[in-house]
Amino acid sequence: MAQVRNKQVILSNYVSGFPKESDMEIVETTITLKLPQYSNEVLLKNLYLSCDPYMRNLMDKPEGAPNPLSYTPGSPLGGYGVSKVLESGHPDYKKGDLVWGFTKWEEYSLAPSAQIHFKIEHFDVPLTYYTGILGRAGITAYGGFFEMGSPKKGENVFVSAASGAVGQLVGQFAKLTGCYVVGSAGTKDKVDLLKSKFGFDGGFNYKEEPDLDAALKRHFPEGIDIYFENVGGKTLDAVLLNMKLRGRIAVCGMISQYNLSQHEDVSNLAQIIYKRIRMEGFNATDFYPLYPKFLEFVLPHIREGKIVYVEDIAEGLGNGPAALVGLFSGRNVGKQVLVVARE
Amino acid sequence: MAQVRNKQVILSNYVSGFPKESDMEIVETTITLKLPQYSNEVLLKNLYLSCDPYMRNLMDKPEGAPNPLSYTPGSPLGGYGVSKVLESGHPDYKKGDLVWGFTKWEEYSLAPSAQIHFKIEHFDVPLTYYTGILGRAGITAYGGFFEMGSPKKGENVFVSAASGAVGQLVGQFAKLTGCYVVGSAGTKDKVDLLKSKFGFDGGFNYKEEPDLDAALKRHFPEGIDIYFENVGGKTLDAVLLNMKLRGRIAVCGMISQYNLSQHEDVSNLAQIIYKRIRMEGFNATDFYPLYPKFLEFVLPHIREGKIVYVEDIAEGLGNGPAALVGLFSGRNVGKQVLVVARE
Repeated sequence: MAQVRNKQVILSNYVSGFPKESDMEIVETTITLKLPQYSNEVLLKNLYLSCDPYMRNLMDKPEGAPNPLSYTPGSPLGGYGVSKVLESGHPDYKKGDLVWGFTKWEEYSLAPSAQIHFKIEHFDVPLTYYTGILGRAGITAYGGFFEMGSPKKGENVFVSAASGAVGQLVGQFAKLTGCYVVGSAGTKDKVDLLKSKFGFDGGFNYKEEPDLDAALKRHFPEGIDIYFENVGGKTLDAVLLNMKLRGRIAVCGMISQYNLSQHEDVSNLAQIIYKRIRMEGFNATDFYPLYPKFLEFVLPHIREGKIVYVEDIAEGLGNGPAALVGLFSGRNVGKQVLVVARE
Repeated sequence: MAQVRNKQVILSNYVSGFPKESDMEIVETTITLKLPQYSNEVLLKNLYLSCDPYMRNLMDKPEGAPNPLSYTPGSPLGGYGVSKVLESGHPDYKKGDLVWGFTKWEEYSLAPSAQIHFKIEHFDVPLTYYTGILGRAGITAYGGFFEMGSPKKGENVFVSAASGAVGQLVGQFAKLTGCYVVGSAGTKDKVDLLKSKFGFDGGFNYKEEPDLDAALKRHFPEGIDIYFENVGGKTLDAVLLNMKLRGRIAVCGMISQYNLSQHEDVSNLAQIIYKRIRMEGFNATDFYPLYPKFLEFVLPHIREGKIVYVEDIAEGLGNGPAALVGLFSGRNVGKQVLVVARE
């Protein structure tokens, strides 16, 4: 029975403020590559891991009712990823299947089959895409934009963190719908990417705009119908002033807030009444039932090159902490993926 | 042709901060009680006027695109009220009809017929009710609670400004739906009214709670499903921490914010993602198509005494400024009505 090395990225200590690489540690454990007798679990070899902003929230010291997904010092991080089934005790999966779902930041995982979200069935696209455009980021962008946003042709769409895993897709979905779309990002290169690569109508670097309200008024003289919210804080506050009547704010994330013990204040909420704004938070899981419909929509566009996806690939679990930490300084360009193994 | 006195409440100057009685003035003008030839307008005798918090927003010096309803110094205030048709140039109305809609704070108004919202057809209830429970406040509570709130039996409902024109109705609608409902108000007497008169399960005086979060946790140990928002600011911030998963916030008003040039900050908006909260602003007008259905629902309950309505009646246009200003110090108990004439 083969006992093999199982490298892991573990949490060293609970995090407050911005996470540092030293809040995590690479350790080597071992694992027996054999399912225990009568187990209905699955034995996974992890290939690609998704680095996501929400993971920061799981590094907090739990207060009150703990989140069952919260990380524990000494144990590996968890997250979404693409894995290969080495052995299965569950009839839905068999050896050799490729799957995506919730897994651990380690080389091999013994996991309840319920943690697998979908079996991968289309292989003519990069496998890494199942950590992003064909995984949670894709469903998030699709459900958030189409279901929460209820977009109509000709409407004005603003996306923050617009070159990120989700933002770049929202922008492209908006263009396919016939909307006018502008995004914000945190470097000139990312802003350039919005127009040159993703087809946005415009973009701006929020770090170089002393007055976000003025920047939005410049890009949206007639106001914003749909705001796809990824950042929160000051950006949201400025957006509220620029929403149109019956505008919709799809709240996907608030990355600017996750590292702050005292959240940034938003003072323009009365706009929600004046403009009859609908603001709604959601989670990719809410839209899982749409996944087959989403694939039907997105795969042909990917194959025809009408939707593109930019990934930032980090190699090896050893680079995991840096890749994760980099999300919060905006170091990544596009979807941050971590390669554990390629097959 | 009878020229008669037409007393008015006019705006003396634009308001900043809390409105004062001296920001308004009572003046006497005259009006000829005869429709101009070929006019399709209506000549109204105003009977009862509604005093509403939103009116404060119309007293601001307009910045940017002016609200067409904004008040102008030297001209009478406008608002909702019950009026008698003295003469009509429009086929939908005839002399003697009682109507409710948008009118001016004066004894007689010559108004476009489009400003009339509904002709009054049920007279076995107090006519003042058409400024409140059977007018905008009623539709607001009905649409806001049932359409925005999507309440289910057994859910937990929190209402702020709970003894006010709208809040007292939301609480009673919630009880009729089988919900658990708690309200906040600003005096002990109002809090007592919530339980003794309107059947709320509980209530608290927000002015006597040093920690609103703790007060909410005491009343809602399992969290809030629906928050009917009338006040904004600190209350909203505390509520966000206490919402349940997929909770709904129906944003009807934010009275605590209207007099502040710098709005109170809300810092817990990230809860919208964590709890997948839907927060939506609305306006009574959105629900006007539901008015006949609403009357069918509410009239039998009023007749059977199953829904009660508390009004605070001020007599005469001369008391208008005080009645309006009193809304912001919470002087009124229940719906604030201003009597111009009784018939």
